[in-house]
Amino acid sequence: MKIFAEIITVGDELLIGQVVDTNSAWMGKKLNQFGIAVNRITSVRDDSKEITEAVNSALKRVDIVLMTGGLGPTKDDITKTTLCQYFNTELVFDEAVYNNIKRILAGRIPMNEQNKSMAYVPKSCTVIPNHVGSASISWFDHQGKVLVSMPGVPDEMKTAMEQEILPRLNKKFDTDFILHETYIVKNYPESVLAEVLEEWEDKLPSFIRLAYLPKPGAMRLRLTAQGEDKAKLEETLRLAEEGLRKILKHDVFAEDDKPLEEQLGIWLRKHKYTVATAESCTGGRVAAKIAAIPGCSDYFNGSIVAYQNSVKRMQLGVQSATLEKHGAVSEETALEMVQGVCKQLHSDCGIATTGIAGPTGAAPGKPVGTVWIAVKCGDKIRTRLLNYDHGREMNIERTCNQGFFMLMELLQELK
Amino acid sequence: MKIFAEIITVGDELLIGQVVDTNSAWMGKKLNQFGIAVNRITSVRDDSKEITEAVNSALKRVDIVLMTGGLGPTKDDITKTTLCQYFNTELVFDEAVYNNIKRILAGRIPMNEQNKSMAYVPKSCTVIPNHVGSASISWFDHQGKVLVSMPGVPDEMKTAMEQEILPRLNKKFDTDFILHETYIVKNYPESVLAEVLEEWEDKLPSFIRLAYLPKPGAMRLRLTAQGEDKAKLEETLRLAEEGLRKILKHDVFAEDDKPLEEQLGIWLRKHKYTVATAESCTGGRVAAKIAAIPGCSDYFNGSIVAYQNSVKRMQLGVQSATLEKHGAVSEETALEMVQGVCKQLHSDCGIATTGIAGPTGAAPGKPVGTVWIAVKCGDKIRTRLLNYDHGREMNIERTCNQGFFMLMELLQELK
Repeated sequence: MKIFAEIITVGDELLIGQVVDTNSAWMGKKLNQFGIAVNRITSVRDDSKEITEAVNSALKRVDIVLMTGGLGPTKDDITKTTLCQYFNTELVFDEAVYNNIKRILAGRIPMNEQNKSMAYVPKSCTVIPNHVGSASISWFDHQGKVLVSMPGVPDEMKTAMEQEILPRLNKKFDTDFILHETYIVKNYPESVLAEVLEEWEDKLPSFIRLAYLPKPGAMRLRLTAQGEDKAKLEETLRLAEEGLRKILKHDVFAEDDKPLEEQLGIWLRKHKYTVATAESCTGGRVAAKIAAIPGCSDYFNGSIVAYQNSVKRMQLGVQSATLEKHGAVSEETALEMVQGVCKQLHSDCGIATTGIAGPTGAAPGKPVGTVWIAVKCGDKIRTRLLNYDHGREMNIERTCNQGFFMLMELLQELK
Repeated sequence: MKIFAEIITVGDELLIGQVVDTNSAWMGKKLNQFGIAVNRITSVRDDSKEITEAVNSALKRVDIVLMTGGLGPTKDDITKTTLCQYFNTELVFDEAVYNNIKRILAGRIPMNEQNKSMAYVPKSCTVIPNHVGSASISWFDHQGKVLVSMPGVPDEMKTAMEQEILPRLNKKFDTDFILHETYIVKNYPESVLAEVLEEWEDKLPSFIRLAYLPKPGAMRLRLTAQGEDKAKLEETLRLAEEGLRKILKHDVFAEDDKPLEEQLGIWLRKHKYTVATAESCTGGRVAAKIAAIPGCSDYFNGSIVAYQNSVKRMQLGVQSATLEKHGAVSEETALEMVQGVCKQLHSDCGIATTGIAGPTGAAPGKPVGTVWIAVKCGDKIRTRLLNYDHGREMNIERTCNQGFFMLMELLQELK
């Protein structure tokens, strides 16, 4: 059966742009794995009328409503009392929640009225244990539907979802299977790809949806299949992929809905290669992305972030003559950077970046957005010039992705 | 006058968790600066019925509806046709948009049917120029209200908002002033802070709202004032701050709604100090955060990311004896790392991190989440131990914030 959920996130900080809602994307991904599709995400203010209206209309549309936020001990936290009004119930003291609060405070933080207030829970709900925080989590059964109210703290929400809420939802609802396959395509602008794939796309059955997801430095295609017969979905996706490969051949690249750096890590581990980065304009972000992947110590040696030219010379061994003749933002400097970091950090592979991220720093013949990237794997070296300005943040992000992409191409050629 | 807006973001990728909606937070912040409060953010699927329902209910609640997404050249992009149905109009060919598409394709990408389709715009709308992309931007005036449909590509949305849409909204609506003041408070858990501030909080006038924003390694307080009389708002905020400082004294820290690394940059520039980082568990993220701030080349020298012990020894000069006796995750190693990087990169200030980010890597007496941080400024050095596990991502993020916080404390003592 097609089961839909909606997510409601509560908090003024989301509406005034002080906090980016990252919880919803995480929840969406997890719910999909359990065969539950997210119909809508709504962020509302810390306002009782707004919360009530959002809850009421969501419960009309879907079977499952998951809420985060507004459960702290302070006066701006009103989700609990609002839900009590909505479900026509009252707050009662809960001994188990109180003991959990004591456990979390652990003697380091005093038990005061504010903290104690978190031990009051809606009478008609099922209290879900919060293993890593002090706020209570409420599960309401309501006319065959479910509403769960969780803390907005990502770690508390994630632990509760994984350990308690997803298993309970899975037990209660008879859900469809939802399968996603994602492909990375190189060498195609979106519009040209759409043209090339039109005939293939038109033949996809109605229970498969195709999406184009352009991202800096790569185009992604996503196929989503939903239905009750898992084997049929898998077989249809397999046939669709076959058709896709027939058209795009070697331009269909990695085929996994993983960040590029995670895919790169898998390949590096497979080849037993190590990697290091030499970064100027990306300022350590290439390294930080590699290091964000658990287990990266198997292949990640480290990085030299050479923001100043003196660091390029001293730590990476870039020649003064190179910097003088060609400038810090040049193919020659990028080459010496990648060679230098592989040598200094005893690394098989390397990624080097040097460019003008902007908004300032442009030089004659080198406008903002000019970036040279060099990658190395064993004896193979490759360089690429990027020369579009999309603003500092995008320039940096795109350079990281291109660097991963280029090193993956080198590794792919080894296969 | 209180003017509210709502944001509607369109795209399956948001609902299945493939993409985090960062556009809305950016828009919320900008709208606030123009005196427009965001009432609600809604993310909907690429589904005509869903989009229509979201648009219809948003236009009932507020004066301004800003939409992003679903304007690309492919079949899953249906925002434009859906809006045509909703506003009872049709698509017509627009010569200016067509020429803009040609300009963006710049001969690099062929003009095909897909790209040409983007030159068709709703007849009843005002077309807003898209300076950095090919999709058209539509402004609908509807019964005294406004709906604007923009591309979801962050760069295109941001340029259109700043150069075209915000100025036009400002001209059309007679808006309130909305002022925010944010304070960083140290040494207080949320519940204790709430208790200490209760009396002060109760005396705040009704047009001022207080919010508690816990973040990894720091507590933030935000005061929001909204009204027509800017001078009165400013004076009331000033008095509120005076009261706050009387209670919290030196525990009220930086007072700016900037990322810590941006505030740190301002102080470093003021003191004419340079900074470098030596990173193990954070893997370059401290450096990357510093480097994300425009103009950081004034004070950022670079970083040595020493993920492997050999890099700690060779590049940072950490003694083998230290690593053997105390381990890589130790106060001693953190100290030698920060001293090493300041020396090697000729830097006045330094931040060093070494820890076990998890989920693997725990050792006897050193569980996941154990992190040593050392900061240095001139002759002053300080270290701190973090010993809570909040998951790899949070462990890294919190370590970065703590590092900035610690160095800012050192700099503050110099003032």
